[in-house]
Parts: sequence; C-alpha cells; structure tokens
Amino acid sequence: MPTVSIDLTHCQYEVVVEEGSLSTLVQRLSDIGVTGKKCAVITDTNVGAHYLAKVSEMLTTAGVEISTHTVQAGEGSKSLSVVETVSREMIQAGHDRQSFVIALGGGVVGDLAGFVASIFYRGIPFVQIPTTIVSQVDSSVGGKTGVNTPEGKNLIGAFHQPKLVVIDPEMLKTLPNREYREGYAEVIKHACIRDEAMVADLEQLDLEILPPPADLLARNIAIKARVVEEDEKEISGTRALLNFGHTIGHGIEASVPYGELLHGEAISLGTRAALYLSVKHAGLPQEQADRINALLQQYGLPVVLAESIKTETIAEKMKTDKKFSAGQIKFVLLKSLGEAFVSSDLTADDLVEAIEELRKPLN
Amino acid sequence: MPTVSIDLTHCQYEVVVEEGSLSTLVQRLSDIGVTGKKCAVITDTNVGAHYLAKVSEMLTTAGVEISTHTVQAGEGSKSLSVVETVSREMIQAGHDRQSFVIALGGGVVGDLAGFVASIFYRGIPFVQIPTTIVSQVDSSVGGKTGVNTPEGKNLIGAFHQPKLVVIDPEMLKTLPNREYREGYAEVIKHACIRDEAMVADLEQLDLEILPPPADLLARNIAIKARVVEEDEKEISGTRALLNFGHTIGHGIEASVPYGELLHGEAISLGTRAALYLSVKHAGLPQEQADRINALLQQYGLPVVLAESIKTETIAEKMKTDKKFSAGQIKFVLLKSLGEAFVSSDLTADDLVEAIEELRKPLN
Repeated sequence: MPTVSIDLTHCQYEVVVEEGSLSTLVQRLSDIGVTGKKCAVITDTNVGAHYLAKVSEMLTTAGVEISTHTVQAGEGSKSLSVVETVSREMIQAGHDRQSFVIALGGGVVGDLAGFVASIFYRGIPFVQIPTTIVSQVDSSVGGKTGVNTPEGKNLIGAFHQPKLVVIDPEMLKTLPNREYREGYAEVIKHACIRDEAMVADLEQLDLEILPPPADLLARNIAIKARVVEEDEKEISGTRALLNFGHTIGHGIEASVPYGELLHGEAISLGTRAALYLSVKHAGLPQEQADRINALLQQYGLPVVLAESIKTETIAEKMKTDKKFSAGQIKFVLLKSLGEAFVSSDLTADDLVEAIEELRKPLN
Repeated sequence: MPTVSIDLTHCQYEVVVEEGSLSTLVQRLSDIGVTGKKCAVITDTNVGAHYLAKVSEMLTTAGVEISTHTVQAGEGSKSLSVVETVSREMIQAGHDRQSFVIALGGGVVGDLAGFVASIFYRGIPFVQIPTTIVSQVDSSVGGKTGVNTPEGKNLIGAFHQPKLVVIDPEMLKTLPNREYREGYAEVIKHACIRDEAMVADLEQLDLEILPPPADLLARNIAIKARVVEEDEKEISGTRALLNFGHTIGHGIEASVPYGELLHGEAISLGTRAALYLSVKHAGLPQEQADRINALLQQYGLPVVLAESIKTETIAEKMKTDKKFSAGQIKFVLLKSLGEAFVSSDLTADDLVEAIEELRKPLN
C-alpha cells in the first residue's frame, strides 16, 4: 500500500494513497485516535452529491456524532464570510475543542475546511479527503490553508497540518474531464522541479484509463512532501520552488472572470512562461522546455494566451501576489528538468516579455 | 527595569514593564530586529485619541512605513467582519509577509490585532502595547488571540505569541476610573491561584496613586507567564487554572446587554462564586474566601448579582463556553489561597447554587 509519510518538526502524518481507501476511513481515524469524537464534515455541492452520504454513514455507523456543512462549489466559497457561516453552524451543532473536521472535496474545500479547523476554538484537528488531482497531489499536503479576499488569493490563512490524508484514486472517476486534466499541471510541476524521470512516466500515461496508478500519484505527492519537510513555513526558500509556473499563472488566473480558466489551466500557461524564462536566463536546454510544453498539450492543457487577456492586467494582478516579497520579484526557474531554483534577477520587463511570448503558437 | 521573560518551546519574548517605556518603543523594536519593515498599527477610537499620534510619529521618524487602523472601541469590534475589514485595509496599504502589526489598546484590540497578525499572509509578527490593567497583566501575555461570534466569546481564534510586549504603567492614567478598577479582578485572580503573598500587597495598594508600581504589575504578569510556560496550548490543564472565576463570570457577562457589566466586574462576581464552591468542595478556609471578597470590594468591584440577571440565562450561556469540554464541567477551585486546581466533580446544580449565593449580600 503506497503511503507517504510527512515528518515535520512538530508533527507527523500519513498520506494514504490507495484504490478503495475511502472505505477504510473509520479504521484509519481509529488508528490515529480521533474516533469517538464529534466530527464536522465540510464538503461542497458537487462532491457532496457523490460522497457525503457514504462518508456520513460510515462515521455514524462507527458511533461518531457528525454534522455536515455543504458550501457552494467553486472558488467563491473561499471567503471569510463562508468561514464565519461554517464556524457558526459548527458551534450551533455543539462542536467544541474535542471535535475534528473532515475536508471532503477539492482544493477549495481543503483550504476552507483546514482554515476553519485552524481557528475553531483556536485550532482543532482535521483530516483531508481530497477528491481532485490538484488537491490529491498538491493542496492537501503541506498544511497551507486559507481564503481569498477581493484583493487576491490566499492572502488570509494559516499553516495547519492535517492529522491524516486519505487519497482514493477511485474518487477521480466522478470528476468532470476538464477538472481531471487541469490537475496534471501540478503533477507536471512536481516532475519539473524535482524529478526528471517522472516526465517520461507522464508521457506514457494513458489518460483514458481511470483511475490513474496510485503508485504514480504517491511518487508525485512524495516530491511535494520532501519540499514541505525541508521548509514547512516557507522560510528557507525551498518551499518557494513549488511556485514554479505560479507567479505568472496566478496573474493570469486573476485576470479572467471566475471559471473561464481553471487553476491548472492558468498554471499551464504560467509554466510555459517560466520555461521560456528558464531557457533565456538559466540555461535550461530548449529541447527540455519543448518536451514539457508538449506534455502540457498532451494533457489537453492550454499553452497559448487569449488576446482578450491583457498583459497590463496580468502585470497589475501579479503585484498583490504573496510571492512579491517586499517589492522584489522572486521567480522560480529551471536550470534543467528536475533542478529548480529561486532567482531574484528577473525584472518586471522580463515577466512582461514572457507573457507576450504566450501569445505565439508553439512551433 | 522590570522585565518578564516568556520562554516557550518554539519562541521567547520579553514583557517590558517600566514607566515611560512607550518612548523606548523604536529602540526595543530594533533590538528584536523588526524595524525597517512596514507596520500596521491597530488601535481603537478611545486609545487612538490618546496615543496613536505619538506612536505613529515615533515609527515614522525611525523610517518605518506605517498604516493605521482604528476600530470602534468596545467588544463589538472582536468580530470576523472587523478582521476582514482590517485585513483588507492592510492589503490595500501594501502590507505583505515582511510587515508586522502593533496592537495599541486594551484586550479587544490585542485579541483582534493578534488574530489579524496570525492569519495575515498566514502569519506575521506582532507587538503588544497594552493600555489597560486587564490587557497588561493578562491578555497581552500568552498568545491567545481571537474574536467572538453571536454564540459566544473567543470561539474563533489562534495561538499567536507576540514578539514583544511593551507595558508602560503611565498609560493607565488616561484610563477611566471604572475601567482601571475592573482590571484588578484579573490581578486578584493571579494572586489567588499562585501567590498568597501578593494578596497582602494588593490590600496595601492605594488606588488613588497613579500609576501603580511597575514592580507589582511585573510580579503579577510573571504569575501568568509561568502558567503559560507550563502549558502554552492548554493541553496539560495547568493553563486552565487561569479560568479561576471565569466559568460563572463569563456566563454572567454573556447574560447582560453589552456594557452593563465590564469583563472584570463579571469576573469579580464569578470569583465570589468560585470562592464559595472552593470553601464547600475543596476545603478553602472561610476566612481566606472572606479576605478575597473584601479585597474585591476594596477595589470597587461588584460581589452581589442583580436580580434582573436570571440564573437560567447564566446557566444557558455557560453551555457554549469553551471550558465545557465535551459536556463535562471543569471548574477551577482553590484548596487555599495560592493553590488552585481543576475539579471535574462539580455538577450543574452546584454551579446554580453558587450563582444563587451571589444574590445574598456579603456578611
């Protein structure tokens, strides 16, 4: 059974990656000592329709007293007002510091529920059951939780590590095709920054066969896990490597009406831009950049920026990005596939040039 | 110069207690390495009127780029919506993860500003400049931050330790008399749970002479500091001793319209109730209880509960108190002055009896 262990200074937890692992939830909760307590299950309208009844029944049968909290699917639920609504529902349902939270859903639910858990009674345990590729390989691991404000994404939040992450690749079968494919932008990112060999595996993967191999997911998660272990709170800079493709990607994501581009689609564009800058400023061989761009296209991810998205808008949106530390641009580049580093040498003009490059079709 | 050092597992900070220490703020910030950064000063309408100009000028003169955020004075500002307002103001003012927060005010400002600091960009440093007795000896030390919901007090929050606490007893001179006196309920609490000798000092203190001796404040803060060091996150139970007088006190506070009873006044009533239960169930000598009740009266604090405040209302409000862990009542009792412990033996009926006792005049 593939399990990725996350060993941090002040805590340790397991990421279980196994087909059918959802059915083993109660036993795993028992293993880490959180059954017999009250539980708030937080999900969204999409995921809840598929899995809330099953999860609720498993917990109730095991004698866990539960309340369920279903938020509207979509990024709009990552707000302080939804945090307040869910927290108050939990108080009214009788939860206290002995309770725990289950986040059942994708990245939005994980970030929201994790943040609620981090501030409810000044912090209660939470368990992640991520149901999308993005949340399985990326956002459910590492303890970053938070919500958005109109000014930007994830500007309000907390570091709050889960007690357990249960990943069941079977759950990906209910994911719409576009949401399934967008997640691979993060999978490809992990391969780019730390594991060249995985690029070949991804080139071989047949996207029509679901679920994807648990082993591949587990290896990809392990890349994130090792980075988080090295730099849990983004102090040394190692964790910043996970921002590869994200500086310009977030800027693009913030420049379009919600839903027009999925997160992974924006990151795909940001990845192409980062590859361009890596070739120009960090010696990344052009053929390696070409290989990743081809891989993004193989996964149905966009690599050409629509004319309707203005460069000035993207540049403006990037300014409120958390990665613009004290005004200085820190940008993740690749020296070669698998070898990323943070550069402080790029200028705003370099970024604009890379955005313009995205308007050209790939050769 | 009296300084209380707080040594926790993952951090250490100083509580400076000295007349005139406000004027040394910039040097002290420099000592802990937070000048040269951007600072958000959070205060309220009362305290801001007295001290915001001075603090702003000191920081600006020292080259610190500041923004100021003045919330309405009063408990109503401890809400998630005010958290959102202040956070968004800070984003719009250009703050980022390199910024820090100064909490300039009493307990409400400290709890609010500390919580904002804990979730802004997933946590930035903050400095406390407490301006009331309650916040100086109690809430500014120990890292508990948070806000209220309509269901109860402090149910949403975080543990976030300040980097520095600057206490200037001179600032107490601008405090209205009633607010000054209410703070002594917490001072008396600290003496009750850990330091019988301080009771005599408090009996000798002349309330008409302002400011009170820095040394007395520092010794009182040290009691809280040692308890927090033993149990930072309220796990072992030691920290729960600080709840002496607070279980029934919070219930009373929540049962009256806002402003009718100040926090310390409600705690004074809760203290009398806890003394009654300590005599009855824990062997506290009656004369020791009498001595504390006399001290509360000496400080102008209430010890008789108004008929208009119904026992059933108080009992109902106590149920959503965080101290009602998983339905079990944990109540702090004294075996003797200076020796507190957490009892699980009391019933809801015992608490009702103690509340009823508060309706009788003291002999």
